[in-house]
Amino acid sequence: MPAFKNALARFMSEQRGYRVTFDPSNIVLTAGATSANEALMFCLADHGDAFLIPTPYYPGFDRDLKWRTGAEIVPVHCTSGNGFRLTRAALDDAYRRAQKLRLRVKGVLITNPSNPLGTTSPRADLEMLVDFVAAKGIHLVSDEIYSGTVFADPGFVSVLEVVAARAATDDGVVSAATKMSSFGLVSSQTQHLLASLLGDRDFTRRYIAENTRRIRERREQLAEGLAAVGIECLESNAGLFCWVNMRRLMRSRSFEGEMELWKKVVFEVGLNISPGSSCHCREPGWFRVCFANMSAKTLDVALQRLGAFAEAATAGRRVLAPARSISLPVRFSWANRLTPGSAADRKAER
Amino acid sequence: MPAFKNALARFMSEQRGYRVTFDPSNIVLTAGATSANEALMFCLADHGDAFLIPTPYYPGFDRDLKWRTGAEIVPVHCTSGNGFRLTRAALDDAYRRAQKLRLRVKGVLITNPSNPLGTTSPRADLEMLVDFVAAKGIHLVSDEIYSGTVFADPGFVSVLEVVAARAATDDGVVSAATKMSSFGLVSSQTQHLLASLLGDRDFTRRYIAENTRRIRERREQLAEGLAAVGIECLESNAGLFCWVNMRRLMRSRSFEGEMELWKKVVFEVGLNISPGSSCHCREPGWFRVCFANMSAKTLDVALQRLGAFAEAATAGRRVLAPARSISLPVRFSWANRLTPGSAADRKAER
Repeated sequence: MPAFKNALARFMSEQRGYRVTFDPSNIVLTAGATSANEALMFCLADHGDAFLIPTPYYPGFDRDLKWRTGAEIVPVHCTSGNGFRLTRAALDDAYRRAQKLRLRVKGVLITNPSNPLGTTSPRADLEMLVDFVAAKGIHLVSDEIYSGTVFADPGFVSVLEVVAARAATDDGVVSAATKMSSFGLVSSQTQHLLASLLGDRDFTRRYIAENTRRIRERREQLAEGLAAVGIECLESNAGLFCWVNMRRLMRSRSFEGEMELWKKVVFEVGLNISPGSSCHCREPGWFRVCFANMSAKTLDVALQRLGAFAEAATAGRRVLAPARSISLPVRFSWANRLTPGSAADRKAER
Repeated sequence: MPAFKNALARFMSEQRGYRVTFDPSNIVLTAGATSANEALMFCLADHGDAFLIPTPYYPGFDRDLKWRTGAEIVPVHCTSGNGFRLTRAALDDAYRRAQKLRLRVKGVLITNPSNPLGTTSPRADLEMLVDFVAAKGIHLVSDEIYSGTVFADPGFVSVLEVVAARAATDDGVVSAATKMSSFGLVSSQTQHLLASLLGDRDFTRRYIAENTRRIRERREQLAEGLAAVGIECLESNAGLFCWVNMRRLMRSRSFEGEMELWKKVVFEVGLNISPGSSCHCREPGWFRVCFANMSAKTLDVALQRLGAFAEAATAGRRVLAPARSISLPVRFSWANRLTPGSAADRKAER
């Protein structure tokens, strides 16, 4: 529907400070970001081809990108030493590992802002990355689904700002992805609704401003609550989650220790968080904690429980399940979910 | 969304005269029927496996079912001799051909009501088909997307009425298809809208009654208009299209003759119809003509043009493009469409 694509192109441009523009005829609509990422993999990679993805990455990619396409993912190992920033050395290392596995590297996929880190990619890192893919002659996929969640400096830089001068539209990809959009159509009334909604600039500005204000507030609530019990979050400026270092609560500094801690937090404390190992993080002890899909009151209860657990754990005592005054459903957002929820649920979980 | 699945289960049961019921927990939602059919293929067939499909069949299946899954289609050849009804001999013949091609037959897929025939499967044919798949130990997929278009006797018999006593729910397929529904999600507001709409029984009854009345009327308009110039339609009782025998307009009784006629109708007469060869029909000269996605006035213009063309063709004169008082867009619904339209467009085209 042209009205929707036009409104979307304008809104996406506004979100990027009008530093880049979008041609509505190059927009391909899909029923969800999962569908978009899978369609791109079908377009760009054959069975046995690989994409490099910086770690930690969204655990769903192992399902979304590989499951039906036959494509492989080779992780680009980032570490806490530099705040999990992407480096040329890490990219080169991943590229070499892919070659050793006899995989043909077809591209790099990044999430910017990062899921699970909640950080935006600095312009210098994007420039380094664009140099890398240009040198290798491979594709670059930038999943910017969280660009509307940036709540603090440094602001969001879209990869389009960096490649604008160098990249041309690949009509082949647009055409193939458009054909594949048959497999996940966006219904007409949804396009009507979103066209009206995004066409109202006053509304979208107020909405985004209020939304980022609330995310910032909720993120502070989580970070302060965790700091009070000696748990640190990676500094972040975007996303609906924090990347939290819980190493000091583990009985052993290993992935077994991480899994043991995760099971306790899920089954005894009654909170679901995602272990770093599910995001292919190489350092045990990191967890993704979502804070935006619940009320401030629920987050308070969660922090109280986690606080009690942390105190007991560091005191070396066995932790028992606390009395549950508020029911917090255990949600397995990162693995083996049998029944995906509504689109709204899924967005919160990504 | 449970409210939507509950309303859908009740509506689907009503459409089948309450002779069968549906368990809402066995319903998997997908963004369009194309998405549903592809997901089922991903569930039931691996690369190199095959499904048998009676001809003529919806040309999109060659794309939807095979493209990304790697599955193959082996046509079950039905003929005009018995009104293109499915026979055991045709099924056995297709099964043998598949074996000769070293393909593992995983099931049979039917469309009931048939696209492109516009006919419903008689109960006896469904019983024969169920016996066949039971004997071979293979799957049966019944695409009943057009069950709401039945406008005349004999009424619609869902395959569920025939298998009710023999079939059990395959939880594995429900679970796998549910996971795959991530790749084509139905947005929350669409589910809300449809739950309200389907929950209003008075409205849905009036809507279906009025809709089938209009389809019947339009179908008569087309059949009578074609009969007036000596062109026959297959007798039908459902669907948004007729299966039309245009053999007498062809210069040669071959698929070359069919393609030559199709090009004339598209480029000279300005009408888009689907040649039977695109539906894998083995008898040249049949065409699918859609009648429901236009106004009665537009259909009249189309019939006038086709009438003039038929007269000229049978008089052996070269046919020229008539003056176009109403613009009829040329629509390539069966092949090589680059830009799928809205969901409503696609539904009309299927």
